[in-house]
Amino acid sequence: MPNSHPKIKVGVLGATGTVGQRFIQLLATHPYFVIHALGASSRSAGQEYAQVTKWKLATPIPVFVRRMIVQECKPDAEGFSECGVVFSGLDHDVAGDIEFAFRAAELIVFSNAKNYRRDPVVPLMVPLVNPHHLPVVRHQQTTLSPPTKKGYIVTNANCSTTGVVVPLAALEKAFGPLETVMVTTLQAISGAGYPGVSSLDIMDNVVPYIGSEEEKIEWETSKILGGVNDDGKGFDHHAHAPLKISANCNRVPVIDGHTACVSVKFRRETPPSLEDIRKAFADYTCEAQTLGVPSAPPQAIVVHDAPDRPQPRLDRDLHNGACVSVGRIRPCGVLDVKFVCLVDNVRLGAATSSIMNAEIAVERGYIV
Amino acid sequence: MPNSHPKIKVGVLGATGTVGQRFIQLLATHPYFVIHALGASSRSAGQEYAQVTKWKLATPIPVFVRRMIVQECKPDAEGFSECGVVFSGLDHDVAGDIEFAFRAAELIVFSNAKNYRRDPVVPLMVPLVNPHHLPVVRHQQTTLSPPTKKGYIVTNANCSTTGVVVPLAALEKAFGPLETVMVTTLQAISGAGYPGVSSLDIMDNVVPYIGSEEEKIEWETSKILGGVNDDGKGFDHHAHAPLKISANCNRVPVIDGHTACVSVKFRRETPPSLEDIRKAFADYTCEAQTLGVPSAPPQAIVVHDAPDRPQPRLDRDLHNGACVSVGRIRPCGVLDVKFVCLVDNVRLGAATSSIMNAEIAVERGYIV
Amino acid sequence: MPNSHPKIKVGVLGATGTVGQRFIQLLATHPYFVIHALGASSRSAGQEYAQVTKWKLATPIPVFVRRMIVQECKPDAEGFSECGVVFSGLDHDVAGDIEFAFRAAELIVFSNAKNYRRDPVVPLMVPLVNPHHLPVVRHQQTTLSPPTKKGYIVTNANCSTTGVVVPLAALEKAFGPLETVMVTTLQAISGAGYPGVSSLDIMDNVVPYIGSEEEKIEWETSKILGGVNDDGKGFDHHAHAPLKISANCNRVPVIDGHTACVSVKFRRETPPSLEDIRKAFADYTCEAQTLGVPSAPPQAIVVHDAPDRPQPRLDRDLHNGACVSVGRIRPCGVLDVKFVCLVDNVRLGAATSSIMNAEIAVERGYIV
Amino acid sequence: MPNSHPKIKVGVLGATGTVGQRFIQLLATHPYFVIHALGASSRSAGQEYAQVTKWKLATPIPVFVRRMIVQECKPDAEGFSECGVVFSGLDHDVAGDIEFAFRAAELIVFSNAKNYRRDPVVPLMVPLVNPHHLPVVRHQQTTLSPPTKKGYIVTNANCSTTGVVVPLAALEKAFGPLETVMVTTLQAISGAGYPGVSSLDIMDNVVPYIGSEEEKIEWETSKILGGVNDDGKGFDHHAHAPLKISANCNRVPVIDGHTACVSVKFRRETPPSLEDIRKAFADYTCEAQTLGVPSAPPQAIVVHDAPDRPQPRLDRDLHNGACVSVGRIRPCGVLDVKFVCLVDNVRLGAATSSIMNAEIAVERGYIV
Repeated sequence: MPNSHPKIKVGVLGATGTVGQRFIQLLATHPYFVIHALGASSRSAGQEYAQVTKWKLATPIPVFVRRMIVQECKPDAEGFSECGVVFSGLDHDVAGDIEFAFRAAELIVFSNAKNYRRDPVVPLMVPLVNPHHLPVVRHQQTTLSPPTKKGYIVTNANCSTTGVVVPLAALEKAFGPLETVMVTTLQAISGAGYPGVSSLDIMDNVVPYIGSEEEKIEWETSKILGGVNDDGKGFDHHAHAPLKISANCNRVPVIDGHTACVSVKFRRETPPSLEDIRKAFADYTCEAQTLGVPSAPPQAIVVHDAPDRPQPRLDRDLHNGACVSVGRIRPCGVLDVKFVCLVDNVRLGAATSSIMNAEIAVERGYIV
Repeated sequence: MPNSHPKIKVGVLGATGTVGQRFIQLLATHPYFVIHALGASSRSAGQEYAQVTKWKLATPIPVFVRRMIVQECKPDAEGFSECGVVFSGLDHDVAGDIEFAFRAAELIVFSNAKNYRRDPVVPLMVPLVNPHHLPVVRHQQTTLSPPTKKGYIVTNANCSTTGVVVPLAALEKAFGPLETVMVTTLQAISGAGYPGVSSLDIMDNVVPYIGSEEEKIEWETSKILGGVNDDGKGFDHHAHAPLKISANCNRVPVIDGHTACVSVKFRRETPPSLEDIRKAFADYTCEAQTLGVPSAPPQAIVVHDAPDRPQPRLDRDLHNGACVSVGRIRPCGVLDVKFVCLVDNVRLGAATSSIMNAEIAVERGYIV
Repeated sequence: MPNSHPKIKVGVLGATGTVGQRFIQLLATHPYFVIHALGASSRSAGQEYAQVTKWKLATPIPVFVRRMIVQECKPDAEGFSECGVVFSGLDHDVAGDIEFAFRAAELIVFSNAKNYRRDPVVPLMVPLVNPHHLPVVRHQQTTLSPPTKKGYIVTNANCSTTGVVVPLAALEKAFGPLETVMVTTLQAISGAGYPGVSSLDIMDNVVPYIGSEEEKIEWETSKILGGVNDDGKGFDHHAHAPLKISANCNRVPVIDGHTACVSVKFRRETPPSLEDIRKAFADYTCEAQTLGVPSAPPQAIVVHDAPDRPQPRLDRDLHNGACVSVGRIRPCGVLDVKFVCLVDNVRLGAATSSIMNAEIAVERGYIV
Repeated sequence: MPNSHPKIKVGVLGATGTVGQRFIQLLATHPYFVIHALGASSRSAGQEYAQVTKWKLATPIPVFVRRMIVQECKPDAEGFSECGVVFSGLDHDVAGDIEFAFRAAELIVFSNAKNYRRDPVVPLMVPLVNPHHLPVVRHQQTTLSPPTKKGYIVTNANCSTTGVVVPLAALEKAFGPLETVMVTTLQAISGAGYPGVSSLDIMDNVVPYIGSEEEKIEWETSKILGGVNDDGKGFDHHAHAPLKISANCNRVPVIDGHTACVSVKFRRETPPSLEDIRKAFADYTCEAQTLGVPSAPPQAIVVHDAPDRPQPRLDRDLHNGACVSVGRIRPCGVLDVKFVCLVDNVRLGAATSSIMNAEIAVERGYIV
């Protein structure tokens, strides 16, 4: 199937940053997309990518990207006008205006930035959970002034939200709505970008605070797990069964991979057995898989039975970082059940989600 | 007052291990106690302490200890018979029999091992929380066969329990019983002893599992926060208001200092305000302080107002590791309130607790 | 060419250890070799591989290996007699006798252990440097009592030696013999196996000592860089131009990848220019490459021009860890020139060397 | 003696930075000096110290410093005019002009910045090595236009130089001039200030490059180990016996403490025995000690006999970080002897050196 797709030219916004580098690494050999334009700050614009980028991945910069000339993040900068899609790894302090401008210029924006996640007509889409939110982009286009014909924005979730919401979706799919979720995260330094966390702050240390991260998990989860309003014009935020969520977020000395300890309570009276829960995780399949898009993992959730797994260093690379690992499923003395989950925060938690969202949009005809 | 005490000769069991080293460091200049005998495995017995010990503390071995001859952990080994007290940093696989033998030989044992923590006549005593459990040792003596005259055992809590139970005690003292506690810990490697955690297991990693640690927190907390039975012959385990507790324990790449994210729900209908809770923590005083024992910290709980504190590397040394740090007091979306706490796991979480327990016993006349 | 080879059945000795795991990972999809027998201690023998192995690699255990039954390391244990070759990741305390027995049983042994490295009739072979030492195995066979027909032993070098000797070989090939080499290493924890280095010893720390490592570098380098005696019956240890070598070895908190700072002095009067040296590194080709064996890297030495490279985390994965990285080529104020080199200590520094040595032996007809 | 000194009011320039924080920590209870003024950038000026400082030490900000108002780094800013001395922890990009201005305003400047280290009339003074360079400040004063009466500048050495030059001084004192020195450092992250090294750059990694650090070691060593010209107007840079020095500098994941592997060759024909060298290190005494200044360590060099010491985490705190640790004294296969040394880079390697230099100046009458 990949071969049947004509390649779609894509741009990367924030191409020199941590998420931008992952976009480039993942798109360099992509069956649908071909990197055609790179956008970064005016400081970098006009120079070769390899000159202005502190490349921090363990695989080298793709050869054909090294000498590409970085552009400013403007829709009329060279190359972007030929693109159908841009992937945004921009910092939130600039993402709002830039993504707005690209959409207005009729580009389709898949954004990892937080700016439009709470926009009532922008899907907040975790590709392993809620691709059924995608059609709202048609309504989004009509709300713009002037309305766009092609351009729209799809966001993906915060990295820590992503890791938690996939197993929660599996539980709701199998056992009906949840009532309560308690989450404590142990998050990797790469989630803060580069230079990000000073080594003096995190070596031999834990920082029990990540600005606005707890609010993101608490807010985003309901939007993602919720449905689309009956009129197709917005999201119901799980309103039929409001979720109580409390999150604690910690930074730990881990390079990649966010771990979370999660406890949940179901709305149904009799909670499912641990064995049924294990099976619900292991059997969970999602639209990305049934569509067979290239970045979809063979398993959305990998269940670990060893008592001390998942662990970030050993499990973050499973299925190229596109799945969520779950382990330690056991009864909770306060809620119904607790477990540990792990997500690769820079792949499924960021760049891979944006790309898989775009793949889904291609397969469903939202990118033509 | 310290000067008025004749020095009490003490022994250290498990003297070459991680906790044993801390005992020696802390006792070397102690106003009440003088190190008189060192016990370790038969492999080390008969040799000089400095020869057989992989000393891992950043201060050197006290000079007078370097050449002390290590003995086997037997009450009749040289030196122990002149001791009034022994401090045990023994591994649990040998602690049971050895501590039993020392008690039978009329020594008073302050133990950091887990073996007797659940014994119904042995106090599980966190010096900043429940010294009122100490008198049960008189009943303990009568239950032995033959009964002892001087010998008894007092245990202190698991390191992670200790960090959590101090702020919980402050809350119960100010606002009455708690109903529910959720705890997720991020624990230091030194909690596992030496060689303990392999560097290949923990560098750039989190291990979301510590064997039986969660059960310890869940079980020990009720015994410590509970009272003494009316007949003085045992403990009520918080039976008047059973506590629901759920713990998640993680190992993180931190050398010393266990961090915990805690959420609590009070039994009282209207939970106290955040400001009242902050005040309850900051104002909490305990018997160790009112007795003025040497190891008592000037503040039992240090409240941090910076949004990203406490942090293990920056705060574990406060008051020589004898206090608990608390910060990030804020509402919990599921229970009433949540906060972060930190304890130095090898000092208040281990050796300092044993020593402060012994100091309290001295002041209250249980060591003569 | 790979397809033309009938698959050779191989065994792995020390299969549950750190190097053994790498052997299995690398051999699982090998074009020449197929894993047929796994040997470990009697404690593990008789059980399934996945049951007895603390697998520490970030890729899962190959599926077909999981349920293989581990054997004792004896030539007559099930499976080994059908093998033509065994790869040994054994600890040195048992490797001597076991490898001896396998050779006597007419198996060809490629060993990562140190035991036979100094044997005067056993090649110490770094595949990117001295495959011309291989023919000495024919003489080796004649010295045994009784002589073997097929069985022989080939060792590969210590991991830190391997990283240094490849660039030294490139220099000697281009500019004639060296006179003096100063080496200071910064070595990864994985070089010590599992559990190996305690986290309490290495977190926030450097250990400036690795037992007998400095002697290994100083001794092995001359054997590897030297030639074969004229009679083909042994090695000349660089006797025509004795090398002065001094090594300092340090353990640092890095998971994989040994870094070394190297200064060299040439015997020729006028040392080559930095530019010529850079070119000699970049152009260096070796027999493994000209033979085109499967594990040979496309470049034996990757030269880095960025001032702060190579770095272990970013460069150890280049060419699947089968090459050496070199950077910071600059004048030395004492000797002629200095540079930094990096080797993946568990791949080229261990398992990949053994395997590439075996591949070379296949291509040259020493395994039939 | 300390009590006989009237307290001298001092200022700290760069008070909010890494070195500035150490100055404040060390000066807070100093017997000679009292903190009277704090200087930082205009961004911080006018605000309370605790408000504008990201304090990163494990001891809290001294209480009386918390609410001190930070000033701009100008001699006429409030408080500085009453100071006799200022300690400078300024970044080199601003230190040149600011220190110049303070000296012109008749303040005595003890600077940790590099700007004036190579000035031919400014002492580059390691307090455990060359206080005999101090009198050149009298000549310095005459070279200024207009000449100063009180004001002068004394610099201390780069942190890595300091650790190496103390044992080298001990060797030269005992055995005459050295001919050759090879140094490879493994340097802590705190040497780069805050935020300094990104955690993404150094976790699980080595960076084999620190900008201009190697040149500093190579250049500064000769100035420090050299003498004063006969006319007292400058420094001879070890001209009587030029030193050949080659340095390799590496950043490693260690918080505090620079380790160095050092090889040396003496000028004398027969090198001293290892035993004599050990004794020369252990017996080395310096003027700071004979003067009995408060920060002088009881031993300038602590010799470690354990084969794996010194180690930064275990030994950096010895004598409050004011000494140098030396170990692993052994023959070098290329030069005469090699050893490992360790310095606390933020104490003796920075703030403690400046302060001890000032103490020496007080005792010798250069501060009145």
